[in-house]
Amino acid sequence: MSADAISNGFEGGVHRFALTVYFEDTDLSGVVYHANYLRYMERARSEMLADAGIDQRAAWEAGTGVYAIRSVEIVYHAPARLGDRLIVESRLASHGAAFARVHQRVMRDDALFAEAKVVAAFVSCQGRPTRQPRAWIEIFKRLKTGSHRAPQ
Amino acid sequence: MSADAISNGFEGGVHRFALTVYFEDTDLSGVVYHANYLRYMERARSEMLADAGIDQRAAWEAGTGVYAIRSVEIVYHAPARLGDRLIVESRLASHGAAFARVHQRVMRDDALFAEAKVVAAFVSCQGRPTRQPRAWIEIFKRLKTGSHRAPQ
Amino acid sequence: MSADAISNGFEGGVHRFALTVYFEDTDLSGVVYHANYLRYMERARSEMLADAGIDQRAAWEAGTGVYAIRSVEIVYHAPARLGDRLIVESRLASHGAAFARVHQRVMRDDALFAEAKVVAAFVSCQGRPTRQPRAWIEIFKRLKTGSHRAPQ
Amino acid sequence: MSADAISNGFEGGVHRFALTVYFEDTDLSGVVYHANYLRYMERARSEMLADAGIDQRAAWEAGTGVYAIRSVEIVYHAPARLGDRLIVESRLASHGAAFARVHQRVMRDDALFAEAKVVAAFVSCQGRPTRQPRAWIEIFKRLKTGSHRAPQ
Repeated sequence: MSADAISNGFEGGVHRFALTVYFEDTDLSGVVYHANYLRYMERARSEMLADAGIDQRAAWEAGTGVYAIRSVEIVYHAPARLGDRLIVESRLASHGAAFARVHQRVMRDDALFAEAKVVAAFVSCQGRPTRQPRAWIEIFKRLKTGSHRAPQ
Repeated sequence: MSADAISNGFEGGVHRFALTVYFEDTDLSGVVYHANYLRYMERARSEMLADAGIDQRAAWEAGTGVYAIRSVEIVYHAPARLGDRLIVESRLASHGAAFARVHQRVMRDDALFAEAKVVAAFVSCQGRPTRQPRAWIEIFKRLKTGSHRAPQ
Repeated sequence: MSADAISNGFEGGVHRFALTVYFEDTDLSGVVYHANYLRYMERARSEMLADAGIDQRAAWEAGTGVYAIRSVEIVYHAPARLGDRLIVESRLASHGAAFARVHQRVMRDDALFAEAKVVAAFVSCQGRPTRQPRAWIEIFKRLKTGSHRAPQ
Repeated sequence: MSADAISNGFEGGVHRFALTVYFEDTDLSGVVYHANYLRYMERARSEMLADAGIDQRAAWEAGTGVYAIRSVEIVYHAPARLGDRLIVESRLASHGAAFARVHQRVMRDDALFAEAKVVAAFVSCQGRPTRQPRAWIEIFKRLKTGSHRAPQ
């Protein structure tokens, strides 16, 4: 049907996630409201983790922990508009025991709308910094070498 | 400063809450996006409860429970725009052991933008219907008779 | 890849649109915030119109007009949670020269999360009620008889 | 009633804007969703401009232009929670003919929740970079020297 079907998932170490701009995303200036790109990027990170085999909901419900965003540096290059079919490209740039750094770009074909560097810290369900599950760290190592393959 | 300072709180059984329309609230058609009136009304209900002496955060943190919306009937009369200073009027219409029914109107002076009937059910922190705290029921009885006075 | 790919589009007169619940959609009670179902339903209506051949962005940019929501009656049956893959079913219930009435349900398999009746009025870009384009009315007639087929 | 009444407006070159955290702002981890701080900061910038005598809505409606965010660098220090009464402090850090750079902090008393550097470019209603109105530049000069006084 749409490009959505073919573009979600990993290509090497880069994850691609398709989304569409709806009325809710725009503001009166006619383009996507700037804060909504952070929502797009969160969706893309969640799908990247899910496609890599990480179940954030299970981690929360089991009391293991959750990600808390520590910082975002975002640059806006061009405005996206109602109905635009966008791709968010996400790449794990680095990680430590308790954090992951992700670089993300919002694109349509070769056009770049926004790019960001996001640092997410893992915290306990009470909000204290804590180590990411060991299995996730193993997944992160594979993601960075690009040896990861999307699950079927 | 603004009208905000003088208009929040109860007058008899009617609670008034002031808010302003920002860019985040609008969509490309230049007016407030329809779903955002539900957010305005939730803010107003939360302030109504707070002004009546009900601490929703404490109830959640103590494991007592939280409100879940069961139904909303909303009619939109006129569009609000960027910078509009609005008032949400809220009135407890009825209540049972486990629910409260609230009627709300979004106004500016005599102009009516939207009105809604909202039913909120109280649920346990695991999501099961449960009785509202006895103290809250006592507050609701006073609210309906209009004998409530805003705390100073 | 996911159910998303196979479930978007029309089946007879019913349009199906897949979406996923992300962190942005939830609130502290752990489930989808009630106002966000209206956003889900707007996304679904926009995709229904697009799949039927209606280009809302072009209509706005050409100065023809835009939909303004007149009323919503929504009933919440069960809470959706992070990561849930939902389907929004939408059906054009009736239409007039200047409005369309849509019935919508948020589902996952046989589970019903919310259902709503939405009335959308067509207005000029200055906000005055106006007739929907004739071509759209013809599309609506086909949608109601279920003779519509999704574009390939 | 609340601290809101006394804290909005300028003190020297620093603008203070009060807001409250509602359910809509939180996510399932129990704290304010990270993207919502950008919404808080936009509200605060809009009030800063309004308090300085700049009418953004009039500029849009007159076809003069509107701000488009060019970049945001935000650091999150601590999570805000439901019911928290926050203050956003905003300060015009610098400006050019076609942009303004604003530094902002989200606080509660001495506690710092988030701080950001935001660059806003002025663009025409068609989205092309353009000069800010001359009167606004004059206002910005006064804001930076701290000689601005809040309007009564």
